[in-house]
Amino acid sequence: MATAEILSIGTELLLGHVLDTNSQFLAQELAALGINCFCRCTVGDNKARIRTAVRAALQRSEILITTGGLGPTADDLTTECLAEIFNVPLDFDQYILDQIENFFKAAGYEMPASNRKQALRPQGADVLPNPNGTAPGIIWRLDESLLAKQGLSPAPKFILTFPGVPSELQAMWRQTVRPFLQNNFGAQTIWSCQLKHYGIGESALAQKYAHLLNLDNPTVAPYAGYGECRLTVTARAENATQAKAIAQPIIDEILQTSGTLCYGFDDETLESALGKLLIVKQKTLSVAESCTGGLVSKRLTDIPGSSVYTTLNVVTYGNDAKMKILGVSKEILDKHGAVSAACAEAMAKGILKLSGTDIGLSITGIAGPDGGSSEKPVGLVYIGLATIESYKGIELSLPSRLSRDNIRQRSASATLNTVRLFLLESL
Amino acid sequence: MATAEILSIGTELLLGHVLDTNSQFLAQELAALGINCFCRCTVGDNKARIRTAVRAALQRSEILITTGGLGPTADDLTTECLAEIFNVPLDFDQYILDQIENFFKAAGYEMPASNRKQALRPQGADVLPNPNGTAPGIIWRLDESLLAKQGLSPAPKFILTFPGVPSELQAMWRQTVRPFLQNNFGAQTIWSCQLKHYGIGESALAQKYAHLLNLDNPTVAPYAGYGECRLTVTARAENATQAKAIAQPIIDEILQTSGTLCYGFDDETLESALGKLLIVKQKTLSVAESCTGGLVSKRLTDIPGSSVYTTLNVVTYGNDAKMKILGVSKEILDKHGAVSAACAEAMAKGILKLSGTDIGLSITGIAGPDGGSSEKPVGLVYIGLATIESYKGIELSLPSRLSRDNIRQRSASATLNTVRLFLLESL
Repeated sequence: MATAEILSIGTELLLGHVLDTNSQFLAQELAALGINCFCRCTVGDNKARIRTAVRAALQRSEILITTGGLGPTADDLTTECLAEIFNVPLDFDQYILDQIENFFKAAGYEMPASNRKQALRPQGADVLPNPNGTAPGIIWRLDESLLAKQGLSPAPKFILTFPGVPSELQAMWRQTVRPFLQNNFGAQTIWSCQLKHYGIGESALAQKYAHLLNLDNPTVAPYAGYGECRLTVTARAENATQAKAIAQPIIDEILQTSGTLCYGFDDETLESALGKLLIVKQKTLSVAESCTGGLVSKRLTDIPGSSVYTTLNVVTYGNDAKMKILGVSKEILDKHGAVSAACAEAMAKGILKLSGTDIGLSITGIAGPDGGSSEKPVGLVYIGLATIESYKGIELSLPSRLSRDNIRQRSASATLNTVRLFLLESL
Repeated sequence: MATAEILSIGTELLLGHVLDTNSQFLAQELAALGINCFCRCTVGDNKARIRTAVRAALQRSEILITTGGLGPTADDLTTECLAEIFNVPLDFDQYILDQIENFFKAAGYEMPASNRKQALRPQGADVLPNPNGTAPGIIWRLDESLLAKQGLSPAPKFILTFPGVPSELQAMWRQTVRPFLQNNFGAQTIWSCQLKHYGIGESALAQKYAHLLNLDNPTVAPYAGYGECRLTVTARAENATQAKAIAQPIIDEILQTSGTLCYGFDDETLESALGKLLIVKQKTLSVAESCTGGLVSKRLTDIPGSSVYTTLNVVTYGNDAKMKILGVSKEILDKHGAVSAACAEAMAKGILKLSGTDIGLSITGIAGPDGGSSEKPVGLVYIGLATIESYKGIELSLPSRLSRDNIRQRSASATLNTVRLFLLESL
């Protein structure tokens, strides 16, 4: 299995001014090609540190991918630094310069003199074209003698450089680098799949599937975040079809065991899974929100085409609004308060009546950070689900220490999941 | 100047399943403390590679910060691996175990046996409390003899470990680590301030302030994202008061020049800035949303205490809902369609009447990816702002190539900013 490392170069990354999304893109692409990514590293615009990082990477791995430091300014050091490390001169490439000049001409500008620098590359390196910008990269096959002079093992090694602009990097990857790597290193393919779960914690999930977590191929690993968790099943084989076949029995086992705890694969969200169910069941939905302030409706309508099953939702944030729009009685509000099982029921029945949908949902609670009491602490949330024939109420006690945003997101997820389970049980 | 490195641990990071936002947060925080971040590195859940990375970091830097690998499962190796590197035993901490057990109890679960592992820490390390989760970290001051045994220079060195969950990491940083580092390494302080702008692009902003972008202390740098942009002013001095004094004249100049383009500092959002204005002006607000599906209401109510100025909002996603709830006429919908200036006006006036607030807002548009036409392309959005005395309509043409999420976020921002400018002009 070929091995690679990613080196991100740029002081703005080290200072946290820019979020490094390139590394994630490259990591995913390498995994898909079956190239083992050993390590990712970030250094600033500093020759000594770039040199150390390049040498360390080439000692361990066959392929070094760098991003950043290809711009026209004085602190763009990547090309210069690589030539220095291997003690080769920088060649000037008239063809590249012409392309850079054309790029400026097409945009209606004169090329600034500083951009001449981008037409330089270490002797022996090939150009890696950049169709979307002025900074081309290089593909450099380091020959044995170059490596030996630097005390590096003489196995074939490659350096590929990219600019830091994500759209340029991605176009260069797709156009040139992906086919290049596939031809030179395309041995094994990694195929992976995420099984998204709701209603079970990471450690409980890990315990449930403890017997799978030490497999070698496929591997199974649990991850958690934002009140949800997932199992990632990853298989290696000569091609994607074979890898998928290796993973399938394990996926089937998990699906059978998890039942309704697993709501979908990969990019599926609770709202997209619910949307598909509503369409299959030909049901419509409306929601009356208090503490989530519109978040449930926002998540429902994140899904393109959601107007088929949701057309009217209300945010009754105040008591007057609950009475006026949903017909919640003053008695309920006086006796039980707006955050109560009785109010959730009246809200759900009120929105059902107002909207005429098949399902009326409600959610009322205390999102914090203020407004909690010992009787009704921050994190107390009531969810209601009404149909013509039935009503189901749910009480959540989320930890009071969670942030307002976290409580609202988790409450909204619980609301969406309540409908999902309701529809599944009615199958 | 103290030096630090960040080591992110997790195979899911190397495979690109998760975007590493922790490193950016930590990098920003270190910069703000005046601690020089030398290098950031990511390795998988693999003891040999964790060991190599830890040793390399401690050879170069005084402070090593790790994230990830503190979970309860078998592939969480950080604590174990650190103890092995320095050849010290793992101590079991009953107090931590009690806390973890309480955490599960509060959530209504039994603690799985695997979580016991999280109560272990290398002998000599202090606990770094995690108020939001089960995985505490460590603060480990490595003494001279430990370092010498590993062939490392005997200058004082610290290892701090964090779990990978961003909300937990950030709370631990703010509560314990920031004050700890300030006390131990606070030499030169870097003070920085972001001036948040809306309604001007990054390159226009950079051009407007070209004369400030090459200053040395303070520095001024423009950044963009999600349709907003900001100028970061950063000053260095012996303490925060002095650094702030160095930055202040530049901040004043920018504020004066930018006028209403600048809506606030640092963590201010359009919705929090608007909330403050509504309170000062004693105005109330309601919104009727179509294409944003609840996002405007969600953002308004992200602000604690927003019930003072917003109590009823509606999502009229379908035409029937627009007619029934807001009194939009069938004639308008037939003649102009739901995405039209006329419909936006009828919606804004409808919600104003229904809610009785001072301001009625509306938003209707085509968020895509489907539903666009040559006449009404994806990205066409109408915003309406009605009061008893006045009406103002706005038409946005966002680029059709933007994602649904991006179009909805930008439209919502434009809606919030419309009210902000309206309130400012009426001062």
